[in-house]
Amino acid sequence: MSSINRQIQVVKYATGIPGPENFTLIEGPRPACPPNGFVVRNRLISVDPGMRGWLTTEANYIQPLPLNSVMRAHAIGEVVESDHPDYRPGDALFGWFGWQDYCAATPDAVMWRCDLQFAPAPAWLNVLGLTGMTALIGFKDLAQPRAGETLVVSTAAGGIGSLVGQMARHAGLRAVGLTGTDEKVTSCVGEFGYAAAINYRSTADLHAAVGAYCREGVDIFYDNTAGAIADAVWPHLRRRGRIVQCGTSSVASWSTQPIGPRRERDLLTKQLSWNGLVVLQRTERYASGLEELKSLYAGGHLRGRDHILEGIEQAPGALQLLYRGENRGRLSIRP
Amino acid sequence: MSSINRQIQVVKYATGIPGPENFTLIEGPRPACPPNGFVVRNRLISVDPGMRGWLTTEANYIQPLPLNSVMRAHAIGEVVESDHPDYRPGDALFGWFGWQDYCAATPDAVMWRCDLQFAPAPAWLNVLGLTGMTALIGFKDLAQPRAGETLVVSTAAGGIGSLVGQMARHAGLRAVGLTGTDEKVTSCVGEFGYAAAINYRSTADLHAAVGAYCREGVDIFYDNTAGAIADAVWPHLRRRGRIVQCGTSSVASWSTQPIGPRRERDLLTKQLSWNGLVVLQRTERYASGLEELKSLYAGGHLRGRDHILEGIEQAPGALQLLYRGENRGRLSIRP
Repeated sequence: MSSINRQIQVVKYATGIPGPENFTLIEGPRPACPPNGFVVRNRLISVDPGMRGWLTTEANYIQPLPLNSVMRAHAIGEVVESDHPDYRPGDALFGWFGWQDYCAATPDAVMWRCDLQFAPAPAWLNVLGLTGMTALIGFKDLAQPRAGETLVVSTAAGGIGSLVGQMARHAGLRAVGLTGTDEKVTSCVGEFGYAAAINYRSTADLHAAVGAYCREGVDIFYDNTAGAIADAVWPHLRRRGRIVQCGTSSVASWSTQPIGPRRERDLLTKQLSWNGLVVLQRTERYASGLEELKSLYAGGHLRGRDHILEGIEQAPGALQLLYRGENRGRLSIRP
Repeated sequence: MSSINRQIQVVKYATGIPGPENFTLIEGPRPACPPNGFVVRNRLISVDPGMRGWLTTEANYIQPLPLNSVMRAHAIGEVVESDHPDYRPGDALFGWFGWQDYCAATPDAVMWRCDLQFAPAPAWLNVLGLTGMTALIGFKDLAQPRAGETLVVSTAAGGIGSLVGQMARHAGLRAVGLTGTDEKVTSCVGEFGYAAAINYRSTADLHAAVGAYCREGVDIFYDNTAGAIADAVWPHLRRRGRIVQCGTSSVASWSTQPIGPRRERDLLTKQLSWNGLVVLQRTERYASGLEELKSLYAGGHLRGRDHILEGIEQAPGALQLLYRGENRGRLSIRP
């Protein structure tokens, strides 16, 4: 166990996608064990699309991080020192442990415990972490899926999209994925449960392509991108369609309000239901949701694909890698 | 009983708000009683904002009317002749009887029966008609109101808005109305249950005015207008806010897709829920809804205001009167 703690700190807010200029690597001493708390050693730290919103001063669902503090992130950590009777050295935890080697924490930082016999650490950040929880709540609770329906997912090969496709197939829906490379198209169909997938970068007329793959229209649009990709899907929505807004990754900045097609008429005449999802504010669903995810995982119906970077020094560039679409699975870092 | 039937027929589709050039008045013989049907004499025929959508070939929730046919409308009719054992002369019915004096109908045209002892005919088009049903389903089912919340309604003094305000007050919410004249502002506060109302025509900065009247933000936006009026309300929506899209009256034409602020980021970060409402497709709720409306009406919690035009010859100009905001209550015509 090292006596050094490496931390990635936030030094500057971003207007676009945060990159190396927004962070710095600081070395300091390993933190002491807090009273009634514990110290974890991070085994795997998360890189999430939503982090972009934590480094902006634009209105968001969460306060921006203070400058010169460690980058907020959830992580899989192992307790190495404890002053709390419920947390013993060796316990594996999923919690808010930040982009650093060690975290001095109290129980409120813990999301849930990880059983590393049941599934390895990467699964606890992915299928059994907030990624799985987001996919589950968006798909099951907000989209209210019915067998036989057609579902379209934007960023279909991403952490969340790759799980939504599998959940949809397991529930008897027909999933069509939108993704950014031919390789990801192959993964969508081969691994992630999609009946078909479209490369939105190489498709000249995305609107027509969605129509060709969804001849009876789209019942559910699980939207992680907004913007032009969403605009190609909306006209295909069927009466009583549901839209889950889970991300807005294709819109580089909301500092000036972007404009787009007005949705009111479609909302009205098709009686659509459009719901936004921030999984961090759905804590009341975590306990039951985790049981459902474990059951899907144990049944072999839900497999995550991970892209793990080696070394905490890769963290400052990781969000840009993610937004360039270069990851090949849910992105995390082994510090 | 006259032997003449006057009908307002549709002769031309409209791109904007239908007016006299889209209709013609035809006189013909009173229709014969159909087998297993009946003939009603219309006592009151309805003029609804949604009719605009029935005279356009744009995509809508309902097929456009065929040309040279009677204008579709619901009405309160009295059975004058019957070949059906369940419908006797003198029965009062709320149904699809059109802009005409007499309608030869079968039971599928009937929405529900009217008890004219319980309430007079205008109430059966208003509080106890589809207007009340729309307000009820939008407010109770889609908006999921909770006591203490703040609700904003656009076209607050209109047929639906005037009922939503009263329902909100009865349910312990604070309602703020947006309307187009100072006289209507007075009605909103004096009659329709609103805590405050704003004249959107005479208010230079509607966004600031909504903020001033809704200091803690807006929990529910019952939107009948879309467009610029809606744009002034949206930034005030609170986390977990609900938007009911019940009309789009401020947008004159959807033939070319209007553009406006993109809502995806607000939907996501505030976890909003935006639902479109077409009451005609919520028939499964009519039976229970009518009982609730009757209870509110009998308790004196829900009063409609009616604006009744005399003479069927006023029908062709009635929609434009409505869209100019010149009506002083729910608009209907005594043929």
